[in-house]
Amino acid sequence: MSDEIEPFHAIAIGQLAHRLKAEGRSIIHMEFGQPSTGAPSAAIAAAHRVLDREPLGYWESAPLKEKIAARYLRDHGVAIDPSRILITAGASPALVLALAASFKPGDTIAMARPNYVAYRNVARGLHMTPLEIDCGAETRFQLTANHLAQLDPAPAGVIVASPANPTGTIIPAGELRAIAEVCRARDIRLISDEIYHGISYGEPTRSMLEFEPNALVLNSFSKYYSMAGWRLGWLICPDDLVSRARAYAANFFLTAPSLSQHAALAAFDCEAELRRHVEVYKTNRALMLDALPAFGLASIAPPDGAFYVYADIGHLTDDSFAFCERLLRDTGVATAPGIDFDPVNGRRFMRFSFAVSTAEVNDALARMRPWFARLMAVKAAFHGPERAER
Amino acid sequence: MSDEIEPFHAIAIGQLAHRLKAEGRSIIHMEFGQPSTGAPSAAIAAAHRVLDREPLGYWESAPLKEKIAARYLRDHGVAIDPSRILITAGASPALVLALAASFKPGDTIAMARPNYVAYRNVARGLHMTPLEIDCGAETRFQLTANHLAQLDPAPAGVIVASPANPTGTIIPAGELRAIAEVCRARDIRLISDEIYHGISYGEPTRSMLEFEPNALVLNSFSKYYSMAGWRLGWLICPDDLVSRARAYAANFFLTAPSLSQHAALAAFDCEAELRRHVEVYKTNRALMLDALPAFGLASIAPPDGAFYVYADIGHLTDDSFAFCERLLRDTGVATAPGIDFDPVNGRRFMRFSFAVSTAEVNDALARMRPWFARLMAVKAAFHGPERAER
Repeated sequence: MSDEIEPFHAIAIGQLAHRLKAEGRSIIHMEFGQPSTGAPSAAIAAAHRVLDREPLGYWESAPLKEKIAARYLRDHGVAIDPSRILITAGASPALVLALAASFKPGDTIAMARPNYVAYRNVARGLHMTPLEIDCGAETRFQLTANHLAQLDPAPAGVIVASPANPTGTIIPAGELRAIAEVCRARDIRLISDEIYHGISYGEPTRSMLEFEPNALVLNSFSKYYSMAGWRLGWLICPDDLVSRARAYAANFFLTAPSLSQHAALAAFDCEAELRRHVEVYKTNRALMLDALPAFGLASIAPPDGAFYVYADIGHLTDDSFAFCERLLRDTGVATAPGIDFDPVNGRRFMRFSFAVSTAEVNDALARMRPWFARLMAVKAAFHGPERAER
Repeated sequence: MSDEIEPFHAIAIGQLAHRLKAEGRSIIHMEFGQPSTGAPSAAIAAAHRVLDREPLGYWESAPLKEKIAARYLRDHGVAIDPSRILITAGASPALVLALAASFKPGDTIAMARPNYVAYRNVARGLHMTPLEIDCGAETRFQLTANHLAQLDPAPAGVIVASPANPTGTIIPAGELRAIAEVCRARDIRLISDEIYHGISYGEPTRSMLEFEPNALVLNSFSKYYSMAGWRLGWLICPDDLVSRARAYAANFFLTAPSLSQHAALAAFDCEAELRRHVEVYKTNRALMLDALPAFGLASIAPPDGAFYVYADIGHLTDDSFAFCERLLRDTGVATAPGIDFDPVNGRRFMRFSFAVSTAEVNDALARMRPWFARLMAVKAAFHGPERAER
């Protein structure tokens, strides 16, 4: 079936990692895009309080929607009516709602490749047509306004992600503005995945809403707020799509977890704690970028945000899944194969998540250093130095 | 658009109820299908313990799947490999997965009318064709094997629900067996919504898996386990659909809330507490069935399970939404209009949920008694007694 959707291969790596751990192996989890830290302390304290006080029925928190809206005003100078915010059980359901509310079967949705696997799979699952645009190192793996201007015919929609998964690259403000302009001119519905907002290493992250008030925006408490397993996210909808998105939400999901909504409200008051997580990621990022070139992993777009390094391993393998599996079995370091992010070139890439502790990053680098050195030596012996260093 | 899906009108009633409450009115919530009780005490205690101990990342609990499988063996004599169980954020996502994994766009899915609104809306949202079969009081609002045998052509699938929403009626074991046989003979994929299992007033509820091992079964911790806002449910898939359903789950939802999974594991050990809730519902049911005929609501299929009464109000209105709204404004009793459950005849029906305390049921009945009496008197004055008593 043409609408067949794929599993996450990182999940298979994660399952192998858990089996190895159960056998007594020491595992470092760099395969999933989730903080190894828990929820902020005030969020946990709020959860304790509410657990004993509330029956926790179906609920959509009005105060949480107001708090989210207030953040867009403070951080982006954008006024959003809270009625335009839908609280969801994570960003994945928000993506389902955004696509279902915006498009009809057969519509073409443009996106960069590499991308987060659910973009193309949810589009296919809803019988839309993902149009993946090969974005290489020259645009730091990101879509540009120029890409969108050249598509003929114009797609019905586009998904942009900044910072992006798997690369962590950020679309500069000027380019966000240019993308918004092309979308307005060509009547392309704009969806902006902002799930890694708050995690950046240079300029603060900018919202597409600063440039296009009618963009649909996805976000979540899973990354910056360090609450992945609490399953809580949000979708901001333009006025013309709110009723439609709400009808889908009621039927497909009903409500988001009530306790998580209470806890998230408290998480907004934990900025100092959350900024410390970002400082850890910043240290980890520097360690990774410093070490990886010596492993032979020189072709990397340094991440501007998020907590990933997406590395070209084409000189070492043409089967990234087997490569990640062997790395895991040999060293206990779990990573994600590029095939999750790029069905065309992903066999030559891998993704490291550095949302672990700095001690774990150092440990992982120490384990991987001799492994990569041995692999390079074997390659050099078989093919000569030119091939190995290609 | 033909695939347009509808909102839940009960949500609009619920929102009005909350506005009235904010204005100081006393409200009794009989509009939603959720227990007014909280999670079992051991589940709450487990949540407290885990909150301080675990970072709560993305997770699917293997022990929870094993526990669920063990329950099917104990209660239904059915052996299920835990790998066939998908943990979801409630039964709604489980329904999405069941339909997405089983069917393709354009496939016809049969279901009783009245039904739970999401059946037809999720089918439409996934571009399938719901085929609603008008099921009246003569089959206690339930589909029969006979209905399914007569459909020409055979539908691709059927959704059965026992106990059903909005009526609470149960399909007897012999009929479940006959439905399974027709589905096998006619190659109809069988989906069984068992979300109200555990809540019955006569015989214990039977699983479709006793009669058809390849049925897809939906269930949840929202009803019997009294954990609606924890957003946790499950889907049992036949072997041939597990991979496909898991691929949809990873892309559409990722994982279910981690804390809820920990808590639900403890909820399995709280049967005495949960049975007491069912005893309360049993008392409430008797009070409702005793009182409603005197309100002029005589055309009722007494519920065998769940916690609903679906009442014919066709002698009083042809606009159930306006009727429920007026009842709420006048008495503070919130109820659900039949249009959520039946787009054809639902303007003449309403649904009461009695999953509240017995004190609230008594209070609601005391408020409604004079309201219905006055309405009957007005009707009689306008139309004469025959019309009013029709």
